[in-house]
Amino acid sequence: MSEAKGMTATPLGSFIDAVLRGCGQVMFQNNPITGLLFFAGIFFNSWELGICALLGTMISTGTAMILGADKGAVSAGLFGFNGTLAGVALPFYFVFSPELLLYVALNAALSTIIMAALMNFLGRWGVPALTAPFVLATWTLIFCASQFGALHTGPLLAASIPDPAAAVPAANAGAMTLWEGVTKGVGEVMFQDNVITGIIFVVAILVNSRISAGFAVLGSLVGLLTALVMQAPEAPLRLGLYGYNSVLCGIALGGVFYFLNWKTFFYALACMVFGSIATASITVMLAPIGMPALTWPFIIVTWFFLFASKMFSRIEEVPADKAGTAEENLKLSRQPA
Amino acid sequence: MSEAKGMTATPLGSFIDAVLRGCGQVMFQNNPITGLLFFAGIFFNSWELGICALLGTMISTGTAMILGADKGAVSAGLFGFNGTLAGVALPFYFVFSPELLLYVALNAALSTIIMAALMNFLGRWGVPALTAPFVLATWTLIFCASQFGALHTGPLLAASIPDPAAAVPAANAGAMTLWEGVTKGVGEVMFQDNVITGIIFVVAILVNSRISAGFAVLGSLVGLLTALVMQAPEAPLRLGLYGYNSVLCGIALGGVFYFLNWKTFFYALACMVFGSIATASITVMLAPIGMPALTWPFIIVTWFFLFASKMFSRIEEVPADKAGTAEENLKLSRQPA
Amino acid sequence: MSEAKGMTATPLGSFIDAVLRGCGQVMFQNNPITGLLFFAGIFFNSWELGICALLGTMISTGTAMILGADKGAVSAGLFGFNGTLAGVALPFYFVFSPELLLYVALNAALSTIIMAALMNFLGRWGVPALTAPFVLATWTLIFCASQFGALHTGPLLAASIPDPAAAVPAANAGAMTLWEGVTKGVGEVMFQDNVITGIIFVVAILVNSRISAGFAVLGSLVGLLTALVMQAPEAPLRLGLYGYNSVLCGIALGGVFYFLNWKTFFYALACMVFGSIATASITVMLAPIGMPALTWPFIIVTWFFLFASKMFSRIEEVPADKAGTAEENLKLSRQPA
Repeated sequence: MSEAKGMTATPLGSFIDAVLRGCGQVMFQNNPITGLLFFAGIFFNSWELGICALLGTMISTGTAMILGADKGAVSAGLFGFNGTLAGVALPFYFVFSPELLLYVALNAALSTIIMAALMNFLGRWGVPALTAPFVLATWTLIFCASQFGALHTGPLLAASIPDPAAAVPAANAGAMTLWEGVTKGVGEVMFQDNVITGIIFVVAILVNSRISAGFAVLGSLVGLLTALVMQAPEAPLRLGLYGYNSVLCGIALGGVFYFLNWKTFFYALACMVFGSIATASITVMLAPIGMPALTWPFIIVTWFFLFASKMFSRIEEVPADKAGTAEENLKLSRQPA
Repeated sequence: MSEAKGMTATPLGSFIDAVLRGCGQVMFQNNPITGLLFFAGIFFNSWELGICALLGTMISTGTAMILGADKGAVSAGLFGFNGTLAGVALPFYFVFSPELLLYVALNAALSTIIMAALMNFLGRWGVPALTAPFVLATWTLIFCASQFGALHTGPLLAASIPDPAAAVPAANAGAMTLWEGVTKGVGEVMFQDNVITGIIFVVAILVNSRISAGFAVLGSLVGLLTALVMQAPEAPLRLGLYGYNSVLCGIALGGVFYFLNWKTFFYALACMVFGSIATASITVMLAPIGMPALTWPFIIVTWFFLFASKMFSRIEEVPADKAGTAEENLKLSRQPA
Repeated sequence: MSEAKGMTATPLGSFIDAVLRGCGQVMFQNNPITGLLFFAGIFFNSWELGICALLGTMISTGTAMILGADKGAVSAGLFGFNGTLAGVALPFYFVFSPELLLYVALNAALSTIIMAALMNFLGRWGVPALTAPFVLATWTLIFCASQFGALHTGPLLAASIPDPAAAVPAANAGAMTLWEGVTKGVGEVMFQDNVITGIIFVVAILVNSRISAGFAVLGSLVGLLTALVMQAPEAPLRLGLYGYNSVLCGIALGGVFYFLNWKTFFYALACMVFGSIATASITVMLAPIGMPALTWPFIIVTWFFLFASKMFSRIEEVPADKAGTAEENLKLSRQPA
């Protein structure tokens, strides 16, 4: 990610800048305007989710500052995006209440601990932590739902024994499935079941990178189509639930971590397809305890692809110290070495 | 851990010393008297558990010696503590019988293999294996319970589908809950559901370190209070089941791996809180197969904190080659560099 | 593994050679004749399984070539064996259909991505990926069975809640159990529930190494006997389901990765015993979602033993750059250094 340039030189200004960039980094965009628009999209859908997203980003960023994490990483929002997601996830699965805000703060702080842990661990291979800190923290804080009376779960958490032999009815999908599914697929990256919010998110990415915006939409579409071909039921398709993981696979591998060319394009495409299939797999794996896959399908598949590509001479990585927007990376790849 | 000094120069004396230190290392105390008192506490509660704990420590230490593990590590009891736990766990979950002793030996030997494996793996980051060898070996040997007629399970292993929507009644906790919960919480580190044994354990730690003894009690209390605030049922609180993981989080981060000061104190406190929440989470995760969390909540949370702190300039680690008791570490941190 | 010598110098010849060696590498044999006989054994049992095994090996090897993986590794079949297994596994659990071949291709390609990822990850410790790419890819592609209508599961995938307290009836095993169990145990490494195929597999290994063939049979026997002593039911014993993981543990540690002597023999024996127990454990772990353990028991136990042995002075590893057949390794160990 490129060097962060604080909007102002004051500590408060730097903090606000880091928080906005943090939200932007949820979709790999180191840009405060993108982050601001992401927040706007969330607040448009629900002020409760908006407050939790904002609080989560602030707490995770602040925790990193207090503990003395690397200043460049903090300024670039790298300790923010997991907090955004850790914040917005909880009111999505639990009944909103003022006390839940304390739990949001706890989740965001834990996400910062895990972010630092994974930076240390994965740093040996130059592989990023992605949104794993958010998932591992949130799983730790929501798996306990049935043991603690203080947590009031919403309707989305329900345990069941999957039946591998059950014939799932083929999807009866139409144009509306596609339209809603693709837009909501972008929105669901941040738990936003809302067409307009999904569109705002795409616009927000556009502000920073046309390539990334394109891959976000492409990822949502590829994820949905993969699940359609596999004959998933229509409801999750329309909700974008088979799209959001592939959105992240697409943005990450489509010009951000690799130099964009036809070889890396097809590599990214394969990652989006597997991201969609893995969404179903992780959902099944967690069904007996009634817990959500979150963005683990994206993380696990993208880690496989990132660890693997260092062994493949045809897939060219962007050096971490030169990485910028997808457009800047593309320009760099066209320069004579 | 500091250099082991054998009580005698004879091989048998060295072995006994290593076994006693091994038991002491369950709570990070490299001290044979502490180990002896731990064994005494277990035998006081149950001679069957005592025999299995002793046998487990002997087998795991002996396996390491036979295979040619690092002598310093063996002498310091680092190949013993997982064997102690591997030994004492089995009669806790299975009906005791003479044949079970063979299974205890198998579990302890496997714990030594896994200990060496994790030392090799985690050594790259200078992070300790903690009690992961015990948990991974024991899970391997008890998950199979429903497939093998030779294993007779006790009442503690029962599968169930957790219901995230179930309203757990608020705990009706009083002074006795607190007293029993905090003392048994220390005891449950080694599966001892016994107030007196818990107190013996605290005294045993006191012999080696007042700071560690303090953090053991604080951890048990913090774990219990966290679960109380989260409205866990009263029964597990009183049994100390929300305490034992936080006991280990507390001792480890409270002066053993970090120089004790206010910053690391609050860092350790956060670790204890998450250790308690993670106890509920891992319990739920394993509920569909009816298996126990063991000390995995402590391990996973403490690994996060240990891996993370290397990225935080405000959390100062004790260099491994200078580490001693919490008191010695504290003295070291106050010396001018 | 020794340098691959292509049968011909043409690209097609090299590809065929790599595919055959790939199949041979399923049981650690870098030999095209062994691979050819393995394929013959599979086709003898079922042409459908044979086609999928062949297609899987071709796709995984081809994917590695297209992406630019290390040529020596490709030629030695190291990008083939996970594809063989990824291919043959799917028609074992799903109803065979022409469309399933596309899914086989997808699984094989994913296995190559994961192989490269694990080579990169585990290379830091000099530990091999074993069949983990096959298992992780196949789990990703079959866990989703209950979500996708396009996948038609066979009778082997059925979810259940294990009952740890259930008394499993003691096995009523006789000579036929032993005969069928041991031969099928070798066959089940590649999902072949067929006595003759098992025998063909042993002959195929014999072509390359008598020691490896011996350890294959010994592993199958030790796995079966371990489960018999643990009082497993008779049906899985006779099907060789407690044997195949120990077959792989035996071949790997019996002269392939270690210099064969009495010390490493007993080390390998312990690995075979734990491989059998772990088979039951992983089966239970996956029971609530009705998914198979595949070769994960072999992988996890063998990883523990391989990571551990680097810490044990008495267990001598074969240097990777000098490794050949078990016989060549044995000869090497007897040469004066």
